[in-house]
Amino acid sequence: MANRPLVTLTTDFGLADPYAAAMKGVILRHCPDAEIVDISHQVPSHQVLSGAYILANAAPFFPPNTVHVVVVDPGVGTDRAILVGQFGDQLYVFPDNGIITFVKEAYPLRNLVEVRELGLLGVEEVASTFHGRDIFAPLVGYIFSGKPISRLGMMPDSYTLLDLPEPRGQEGEINGQVIHVDHFGNLITNITRKHMLQRWENLTQAGLEVYCQGRHVGPLQSTYGQVEPGRPLALMNSMGMLELAVNLGRFRDSFDAGFGADVSVRLSGEGQ
Amino acid sequence: MANRPLVTLTTDFGLADPYAAAMKGVILRHCPDAEIVDISHQVPSHQVLSGAYILANAAPFFPPNTVHVVVVDPGVGTDRAILVGQFGDQLYVFPDNGIITFVKEAYPLRNLVEVRELGLLGVEEVASTFHGRDIFAPLVGYIFSGKPISRLGMMPDSYTLLDLPEPRGQEGEINGQVIHVDHFGNLITNITRKHMLQRWENLTQAGLEVYCQGRHVGPLQSTYGQVEPGRPLALMNSMGMLELAVNLGRFRDSFDAGFGADVSVRLSGEGQ
Amino acid sequence: MANRPLVTLTTDFGLADPYAAAMKGVILRHCPDAEIVDISHQVPSHQVLSGAYILANAAPFFPPNTVHVVVVDPGVGTDRAILVGQFGDQLYVFPDNGIITFVKEAYPLRNLVEVRELGLLGVEEVASTFHGRDIFAPLVGYIFSGKPISRLGMMPDSYTLLDLPEPRGQEGEINGQVIHVDHFGNLITNITRKHMLQRWENLTQAGLEVYCQGRHVGPLQSTYGQVEPGRPLALMNSMGMLELAVNLGRFRDSFDAGFGADVSVRLSGEGQ
Repeated sequence: MANRPLVTLTTDFGLADPYAAAMKGVILRHCPDAEIVDISHQVPSHQVLSGAYILANAAPFFPPNTVHVVVVDPGVGTDRAILVGQFGDQLYVFPDNGIITFVKEAYPLRNLVEVRELGLLGVEEVASTFHGRDIFAPLVGYIFSGKPISRLGMMPDSYTLLDLPEPRGQEGEINGQVIHVDHFGNLITNITRKHMLQRWENLTQAGLEVYCQGRHVGPLQSTYGQVEPGRPLALMNSMGMLELAVNLGRFRDSFDAGFGADVSVRLSGEGQ
Repeated sequence: MANRPLVTLTTDFGLADPYAAAMKGVILRHCPDAEIVDISHQVPSHQVLSGAYILANAAPFFPPNTVHVVVVDPGVGTDRAILVGQFGDQLYVFPDNGIITFVKEAYPLRNLVEVRELGLLGVEEVASTFHGRDIFAPLVGYIFSGKPISRLGMMPDSYTLLDLPEPRGQEGEINGQVIHVDHFGNLITNITRKHMLQRWENLTQAGLEVYCQGRHVGPLQSTYGQVEPGRPLALMNSMGMLELAVNLGRFRDSFDAGFGADVSVRLSGEGQ
Repeated sequence: MANRPLVTLTTDFGLADPYAAAMKGVILRHCPDAEIVDISHQVPSHQVLSGAYILANAAPFFPPNTVHVVVVDPGVGTDRAILVGQFGDQLYVFPDNGIITFVKEAYPLRNLVEVRELGLLGVEEVASTFHGRDIFAPLVGYIFSGKPISRLGMMPDSYTLLDLPEPRGQEGEINGQVIHVDHFGNLITNITRKHMLQRWENLTQAGLEVYCQGRHVGPLQSTYGQVEPGRPLALMNSMGMLELAVNLGRFRDSFDAGFGADVSVRLSGEGQ
């Protein structure tokens, strides 16, 4: 256990409404010592893919045994399952809709339970539109009480993973696409360092050129300041993913490209 | 007392400026052990009604004796009073402008003081434009010091409540209006479960149909997924209020209706 | 030392992406007892001047020995230095780009080190695009471990301060400009109480009139409610800076004036 019960929240609730705070209140009622940290409440509404990306690039940095509560839950009130799982040294409470996909790719699953025994949570009434407050938050209290998770239900036969486009390509080329646009207007793609190293031994080798929607971005750089202000560049970012940026600018706006845009890496002299 | 001194903030300061953080700094100077949780800093500027709604749907979930500081305060620097009140098991510090209205409707008033003795707060200078930092924050320190609230001033003869439109209607019909638009584009109305049960015994009874600005929304549902994606629906939400939504969409945009829009519930065959 | 290790964050990361939370995770890995408070993650992208303003008007209110981590860092990955400095009773960790300017104007420098010995931070790998997570956050852990800051590097010969336009003017007049537009649409200028008192002994004296872009705003007031709703006004704000506002409205929109706009104060009868 961490020194303090540490909880994070990842939701698409936004920050204006009472939803996130109501969840925090309930968590603190059940576990007054909990330390609650926001990962994000600005996952785009109902966008499980964005939530999966944000979760996987923040949660693993927390101390072991942190409980990450994820409520991007377009299926609230339907019969989608609620899962509690341990991946690596972190614990996740999440709806079974694929939001765990990127965490699962990077960290081994150690334990997984489908929550069935709601009676153990000490909740009197469950609003069918706000499981975050009425189920997920009390679940945190249950987990920190030290009672075994195995009492909450059984390991499910399977659970949902997003069906993601795997980067592919002919010899000397990798083709992928944009899966996230960040606050700076940078485009993050599904082309990872692993994909690159499977094709080429050395990412700093001369001749690797990056294209977005067929338009030339430039060779791989290692940081933004390596090109002049206002110029585009590509780099392997701090999450190990291929990212397109404009130094001190916004790639999204300069290239008019966003979520889903085609991105390719080519050894120059080949392909186009 | 809760295990830790627990404070929440509800303001219209936004999150970009130094205002909310300056308040937190002062609270921590006066009470280094305080745990500070944001309810919202995105109450629309000067909108007391929105702030009242957000406060009432988050604050009551916190542990007993949490101190809720509310600074939606268009009258800052004028002679509007500053109040400290206990409603239910929570404590509220707020300007006397009606922001306590929905809390007061749902929880009994147990104690109320109009703050007059600013000398007790240990504050040297008060900026007439930032009482949040210079009066409300030190008040939190005073309250957690364990000194009696009664020393701060007298119980006022009266205090401000918002003059809200009460849902009304002829037999077989209730008419209300939209009092909040949430992050998902859902419209929340002032028609509560209580209003509905005063008119009809059973909210699941066949024939209850909901209209917005005269346009048909549909029968009462219990959760979003009961209609097809993109279709509108009405339900009694997790706060016990009639809500209009579009499954996986935005009712606000689909119906081009927002704050103040007319909403009615009718027993079909009656009215229109 | 404060009762608890207290850390604040000031960044231009926004709140949607995983960046701020990843930093918090790393800080908590290194210092599980840390209490982390956000000053702002909504500094406009790469805008060091805005960040400097926000930092200086929030950080100094925190308890002594709070560590303020600032990551508005357009030069990340270049050879700009990383500094740890004590100004007044607060500690600051920041890139050497001038973001400390307003803090330094108001509080005496007591200690300053340029961080060179990254080996002391126990970090295995540093992404050249995310020093916030890979250097600044571990630095917080080092500082709270109680080891001397002097081991991290030497005092630099000099450090960067923003080259700000100093308010100036002829007799009976001060000319300055807008350096920040806040959430309420208020304009904050670089004309301070100090500048005013150097020119005039008494800020409440009759005849001081404020102009924005040559347009008359009105005499100095002390709070918003002194003019009718919808009317413009000028006042010395809670940070001691000349501010232009509209009571219950947005000066920015009413006057169509923003960052960089000219503002002047004149003793009426003189000048225009």
